[in-house]
Amino acid sequence: MNAVDFREALSCPVPILSHDKVQLAHGAGGKLSNEMIDKIFLPRFFNSTLKKMEDQAILDNPGGRIAFSTDTFVVDPIFFPGGDIGDLAINGTVNDVAMSGAVPKFLSVGFILEEGLPFETLHRIVLSMERAAKKAGVQIVTGDTKVVNRGSCDKLFINTTGIGFVPDDIHISASNLKPGDQILLSGTLGDHGMAVMTSREGLSFQSTVNSDTAGLSHLVKDMLGVSSEIHAMRDPTRGGVAASLNEFAVSSNVGIQIYGDRIPVRENVRGACEILGIDPLYVANEGKLIAVVPPEIVDDMLSAIKANPLGKAAVILGEVTEKHPGIVSLGTGLGVNRIVDMPIGEQLPRIC
Amino acid sequence: MNAVDFREALSCPVPILSHDKVQLAHGAGGKLSNEMIDKIFLPRFFNSTLKKMEDQAILDNPGGRIAFSTDTFVVDPIFFPGGDIGDLAINGTVNDVAMSGAVPKFLSVGFILEEGLPFETLHRIVLSMERAAKKAGVQIVTGDTKVVNRGSCDKLFINTTGIGFVPDDIHISASNLKPGDQILLSGTLGDHGMAVMTSREGLSFQSTVNSDTAGLSHLVKDMLGVSSEIHAMRDPTRGGVAASLNEFAVSSNVGIQIYGDRIPVRENVRGACEILGIDPLYVANEGKLIAVVPPEIVDDMLSAIKANPLGKAAVILGEVTEKHPGIVSLGTGLGVNRIVDMPIGEQLPRIC
Repeated sequence: MNAVDFREALSCPVPILSHDKVQLAHGAGGKLSNEMIDKIFLPRFFNSTLKKMEDQAILDNPGGRIAFSTDTFVVDPIFFPGGDIGDLAINGTVNDVAMSGAVPKFLSVGFILEEGLPFETLHRIVLSMERAAKKAGVQIVTGDTKVVNRGSCDKLFINTTGIGFVPDDIHISASNLKPGDQILLSGTLGDHGMAVMTSREGLSFQSTVNSDTAGLSHLVKDMLGVSSEIHAMRDPTRGGVAASLNEFAVSSNVGIQIYGDRIPVRENVRGACEILGIDPLYVANEGKLIAVVPPEIVDDMLSAIKANPLGKAAVILGEVTEKHPGIVSLGTGLGVNRIVDMPIGEQLPRIC
Repeated sequence: MNAVDFREALSCPVPILSHDKVQLAHGAGGKLSNEMIDKIFLPRFFNSTLKKMEDQAILDNPGGRIAFSTDTFVVDPIFFPGGDIGDLAINGTVNDVAMSGAVPKFLSVGFILEEGLPFETLHRIVLSMERAAKKAGVQIVTGDTKVVNRGSCDKLFINTTGIGFVPDDIHISASNLKPGDQILLSGTLGDHGMAVMTSREGLSFQSTVNSDTAGLSHLVKDMLGVSSEIHAMRDPTRGGVAASLNEFAVSSNVGIQIYGDRIPVRENVRGACEILGIDPLYVANEGKLIAVVPPEIVDDMLSAIKANPLGKAAVILGEVTEKHPGIVSLGTGLGVNRIVDMPIGEQLPRIC
C-alpha cells in the first residue's frame, strides 16, 4: 500500500461488523449476508440501481448495440505493487468492453470469499474497486457473494461482467485488419505480469516493478474522437501482445510485421523478464491497448493516444502485410525476422 | 447420472484433447486454451455471436429496459440428484433475470477450474449447460476460463451473468406489495436444498430427493400472458421462501400472512428436513417462484401457473396485510400465529 492509498484507507475506516472475519453464514442470504452488504458493499458501490437490492438490476437502455464481456480474477497475491485484485477486476472488464468501441456503463460483481477472510482485507479491496469504477465511469449495479469453507478457495476470487453501448458508426473486430494498416501500442509492455511475478517470487530490483492496471475507457473515447475508423483493438492481457496479434493475424488472414527495435519495455521489467527467461511480448498487460488503423490516420491517432496520460509511451509497433497470412513476424533490426508464435500455455499462472 | 442423461452423454462422447485433465496452461490464453475452447465449449454453446471469439459479445439491442443479473455457483457436490452445477448455473441466472418480467436472452459464463479436473467431468457439465440454455431459450455469448493450481479451488466454480429485456408495461418490484394482494407459490418447497444435503451427507430415503433445478422463463411468459399486473416476483433460492417474503415485507412495509396448512412439501423432503432439523420454508429452491398479484387476477394466474409443467403443484400460499408491517406470520391452522423471521445465517452451506 503506497502513501496515498494508506491515507484514503484511513479516511474510510473498516466498518464494524458483528464478526471481524467472513463466516459461511455471510454467504447464506440471511441477516449476516445483509449486514455485510449494507456495511461493506453498498456504501462503496452506491447508486440508485444497486440500492434497490433486487435480484437483478433494471437498466435504462440508451439503444445501440450492446457490448457484453465477463472476466474472472484469481490473481495471486491479491495485493501487488501498483494494484490489487479489486481494481484489476474493474479495469479488466471495463477494458474488454471498451475494446469494442463501446462506452462501458454497468458492471456486475460476483465474489467468492473463503471462510475466515478478514473483513479488513475485503474492505480494502472494495475501496479499490470503488475508486477504479469511478475513474472508469462505470456503475456496479448488481452483485452476488458466495462463501466457501476454509481451503475451498484461495482468499477471494472476483467475477466482473460488463455492459456498454456501441455507437452505430463503430465496427471494430479482430477480423477487420487490412494490408497496410498500422499497429499502435499505447505504452510499455509486461508491467502487470512482471509486477505480480516479482511480488510473488520475492524478487527485488532497484526500483519496484508496478502493475499498469488502469481503465482504458477514456483513452478509447479520445481515440474515437479522432476517427471511428479503428479496424481492430485489443487489450493484450493473458498471452500478451504475442497472443493478441496472433489472433488478429489468424482472424483477418493477414501477416503482421512488428518492428523489434520499437517495443517499449521499462528497464526493471526487462530485467525481471531476463531473470525469469520470459519474452515481454508474452507477458500480460492490464492498462495497455493495441489498435489497428489505416495508414492515413495513424499519425493523428498516435498523437491522440500520446496526449492521454495512459498513452504517453505509445508507439507504432508494426504493420499489417499481405505476406505470410496468419503469421506474426518480428524484425530484429539486423535484417533478420523471427516468428512470434502463439504462446502454448502458462508461463505465468494466476496473474489476473 | 440417470438413464436419459447417460444416453445423451453417450451420443456426445468426450472430445479428445492433448491432455485428459485440466492443466494450468489451459487458463493461459494460449494454444491449449484455444484447444479447450474449440473442443469443449464452442461446439456445445455454439451461436453466431460466440463463434466470433472476440473479448466481448456484441449484441443486437431490441430496446426496452435491460435486466442484468449475476450469480456464482459453488455447489458441493457438483453432481447431485436431479442436476449438477452446470444446469444450476444456467437456470439460476435465467430465473433471476426472468423474475423482473424480462425475457432472458444472453448469458456470459466464467469458469474457475482446478488444475487436474478431468475433461470428462467438464464436458459432462458443459453438456448439461447446453441443454439448460436451450430449454430456457438463452444463448451463451461470451465467456472466460481461469485455471488455479491444485487445492486453490474445489473442482470448479461457475459464474453466469444474464441479460434480458423488460417489456414497457411491466413493473415488478419487491416494494410493490399492496394489502389484499395474494401470494402464489409455483410448487413444492425445499427440493433443491435437500437434494444437495442428502447427497452430500449420504442420507438415503425410500425415494431419492431430486433437485427442482429448472429455468422459469417460459412459466413467467405464460403468467405475463394472463396479466402484466404482477406486483412482485422472486425465485426463493438461498434463505428459501422465508428470506424472500421477509424481503418483500420490509421493502413494501406490509405484513405477510402465510397459510401454514397449504405449504406444499414432498414427503421425502419433509423427512429429510425433519432429520436435519430444518424448516422447509428456509430451504433453497431452484425451480420455483413466488408471485404477488392483486386479488382480482389471482384465480386466472393460478390456473396459468398450474397449466405449465413446472407449476402443477402451485398454491395460493398467503396474502398481504396492513397489520404487522415488515413481519411475515405463519398461521399454524390451530388459530395460532408464529413469526417467520429472516434467517440469520447458513443452515446449508454451498447448496448453490
